[in-house]
Amino acid sequence: MADKQFVKEIADINVDFPQWYTDVVLKTQLVDYGPIKGTMVIRPYGYAIWENIQKELDARFKATGHQNAYFPMLIPQSLLNKEAEHVEGFAPEVAVVNVAGGEKLAEPCVIRPTSETIICSMYSKWINSYRDLPLKLNQWANVVRWEKTTRPFLRTSEFLWQEGHTIHAIREESLAETLDMLHLYHDFARDVLAMPTFIGQKSEKEKFAGAEATYGMEAMMLDGKSLQAGTTHHFGQKFSKAYDIQFLDKDSKHKYVWQSSWGVSTRLIGAIIMAHGDQRGLVLPPKVAPIQTVVIPVAAHKAGVIEKAAEIAEVLKSCGIRVELDVRDQSPGWKFNEWEMKGVPVRIEVGPRDIEQGVVTFSRRDTCEKATMPINGIAKSVAVLLDDIQTKMYEKSLAFRDSHVKLAHNMDELGKVLDDKCFAKVVWDKNPACEALFKEKFQATVRVMLDEKPFQNVCACCGHKSDDLVVALVARAY
Amino acid sequence: MADKQFVKEIADINVDFPQWYTDVVLKTQLVDYGPIKGTMVIRPYGYAIWENIQKELDARFKATGHQNAYFPMLIPQSLLNKEAEHVEGFAPEVAVVNVAGGEKLAEPCVIRPTSETIICSMYSKWINSYRDLPLKLNQWANVVRWEKTTRPFLRTSEFLWQEGHTIHAIREESLAETLDMLHLYHDFARDVLAMPTFIGQKSEKEKFAGAEATYGMEAMMLDGKSLQAGTTHHFGQKFSKAYDIQFLDKDSKHKYVWQSSWGVSTRLIGAIIMAHGDQRGLVLPPKVAPIQTVVIPVAAHKAGVIEKAAEIAEVLKSCGIRVELDVRDQSPGWKFNEWEMKGVPVRIEVGPRDIEQGVVTFSRRDTCEKATMPINGIAKSVAVLLDDIQTKMYEKSLAFRDSHVKLAHNMDELGKVLDDKCFAKVVWDKNPACEALFKEKFQATVRVMLDEKPFQNVCACCGHKSDDLVVALVARAY
Repeated sequence: MADKQFVKEIADINVDFPQWYTDVVLKTQLVDYGPIKGTMVIRPYGYAIWENIQKELDARFKATGHQNAYFPMLIPQSLLNKEAEHVEGFAPEVAVVNVAGGEKLAEPCVIRPTSETIICSMYSKWINSYRDLPLKLNQWANVVRWEKTTRPFLRTSEFLWQEGHTIHAIREESLAETLDMLHLYHDFARDVLAMPTFIGQKSEKEKFAGAEATYGMEAMMLDGKSLQAGTTHHFGQKFSKAYDIQFLDKDSKHKYVWQSSWGVSTRLIGAIIMAHGDQRGLVLPPKVAPIQTVVIPVAAHKAGVIEKAAEIAEVLKSCGIRVELDVRDQSPGWKFNEWEMKGVPVRIEVGPRDIEQGVVTFSRRDTCEKATMPINGIAKSVAVLLDDIQTKMYEKSLAFRDSHVKLAHNMDELGKVLDDKCFAKVVWDKNPACEALFKEKFQATVRVMLDEKPFQNVCACCGHKSDDLVVALVARAY
Repeated sequence: MADKQFVKEIADINVDFPQWYTDVVLKTQLVDYGPIKGTMVIRPYGYAIWENIQKELDARFKATGHQNAYFPMLIPQSLLNKEAEHVEGFAPEVAVVNVAGGEKLAEPCVIRPTSETIICSMYSKWINSYRDLPLKLNQWANVVRWEKTTRPFLRTSEFLWQEGHTIHAIREESLAETLDMLHLYHDFARDVLAMPTFIGQKSEKEKFAGAEATYGMEAMMLDGKSLQAGTTHHFGQKFSKAYDIQFLDKDSKHKYVWQSSWGVSTRLIGAIIMAHGDQRGLVLPPKVAPIQTVVIPVAAHKAGVIEKAAEIAEVLKSCGIRVELDVRDQSPGWKFNEWEMKGVPVRIEVGPRDIEQGVVTFSRRDTCEKATMPINGIAKSVAVLLDDIQTKMYEKSLAFRDSHVKLAHNMDELGKVLDDKCFAKVVWDKNPACEALFKEKFQATVRVMLDEKPFQNVCACCGHKSDDLVVALVARAY
């Protein structure tokens, strides 16, 4: 009874996916709404996921030669205005500070919606010669973009992210960086978030304001919609010319630097939820789960049960497993439900009968299978189990995704594929008019252009032949 | 020659301490000025110190039962206004957002100068019963306080910090938390920053806006001035009443929670610089130094030198020592100067003659002593050396501080002690008029009230007897 009531708090994932999402993020205490519309409070359970993401990504950034820095959040309006496309893209969303310290500011400033402009202004000051290059910086920061429609993690007025900004002496190097970071994100999503992604270049329409080329990482959510989970941008020399970032090269000539930027945000938490969740709530990949294993005493009033549970928790903890011992007043059934809803990968039940036999009962969250394992050597067994869950979650996601991507040879087929809650591979001639039709007819967009050979010789939309056909991944998206 | 020229870039520490500070922070590339007055860019070398501080503190916070979370940066004006003393203290310094997303906001919001108000509003929503208590959260965040006079790290419009906010069912517990965290900061400063500090309660005048009691950690800088390096606050029920944070206690009565908050900021980097620096520049404690050991090939053109230097650097790195191999074009002398200025604790020179003898020459930054050590077992030797530098730096700071604290029995003596660039211990009757005189006559303030027995029976300022005399630490301060 208690079980069912508990799960009832969450909307049916198959009936109302958006409501399921909202229920899950609020009831598992990942997040809450802030007092200002569109802002979110990231609660400890949600923030711990972000910390795990940060730790993994930060190590990968540093291993590839990047350093962290911190640039001011407030940007003078005039600085934002220097790159024309950039300001056009971001000006409508910025929050503006007009008054500070009790006085009207001579020049208003904006809260960073992204930091290209302020970072470029510093790079311009710092860079003298080719010896100063490449400069590969990253910052972990908050940004503000005033959005009309918001949802926790997916789109919020303020969010947390990392933004990498690199400058290079030659074009090939900055382009390589742009693609290297795209692959770094892809591998991170696969290995840490257990999430297969599509990567590729974005269309002209979808590229970042001020970039020469934008690349995206797209993940399939369980409702068949795509979520842009990360982007990398190649700026060429657009910003370096606007912000005058020049260096004296080996040939004694002054040249403009070549530039990239790339970022992922707290949106990744939304991606994890919608890529892995189920009827009971969250299903967290072990590598980012704040709690990897929960230990619950059963018949806790019996002699030695709590002590044994505590001992097991201690053993797991000492082996580096993130463990929680739940000795609260509530019934085991209530606890089972709560930790299932919270997506903890492994639950261990410690009861008197099991103790007698030198075993514990465990349940893995991904499959909800139950079995027993010996107490002897339990840390090793749990570590192996966590690895297996991580692997199986990826395989399951990959199988789901692969069975939900279909070829669409024409607009009719495209409509059907999308209505089947699938991604479509579509041969496209890059004509913006066709792209506009995807949107108009099906509320779908070109997510990325895949590095694949076209499987037909005409555009699926306009039917034209072209020497520049691409395979576009078309989907409805968050 | 090159040596001297290099050092000349920094003002003489004994002649112009403020200019020395400015030269050091800019020339070692810890920091640069942002485009908006009073803002700073924390460059990679400075940010890496902050990351080391964060890592050490965060582990200590978590080990004492705190969890991290993240609250929105933008606070509705009305929310700030709820606690009268608090708003009076902070309103003059806030930056106000009036326009966002292209529209004038119905209600202006402020960028957090600190987060009590927004966190209290969420606590009020989250807390129901005694089972929800204590709640001990911390956040790592940026804050904005519009200051008139600013200096990098010491006082900037935007800075980075951590702010802990805890709520408890009983007063004793929140007061204990307030003091525990004060001691946590003190121990951290001692063990990680190699910096002795004085801790104690702040005077009424110096306490945080809205607190019942504020406690401070004060460090002595090399110019004899005090730097407030951390504070903890006991709010009693002031905020919980203003923001209605009630819980249902075991006795079925609704009660207001008891509350603490505590924080340290990027100001600590300024403290490290001014507590340990010398004529040549920075002297960084090994535990926070971004680079603990630099390896420099000497006569690098000779066969095998660069290879051996690289091999040694690799060995040190694999043992967890933060190491930099400097194989740039510049001369060894130039490099020695640069790394000394940057405060790297240990320099290792690898030259052909040393290699033949199976040794390297090393120099420790704290004493500038040079000696040799065998290449065999070098990682262990360097680790021991780093520990010794950490210890000796603390001992040196402690000896300096102890020789610069003097008793002042009356106002004349107080003036002399302060002019000798020392801290004064002063018996004080807590009369604000006396405190005002310290300021008026000597530009000095009560830094903290020490937990010591008064050494005379009258106030050093007004000469009055009192039952409530305290030993005040009086100093000029940053």
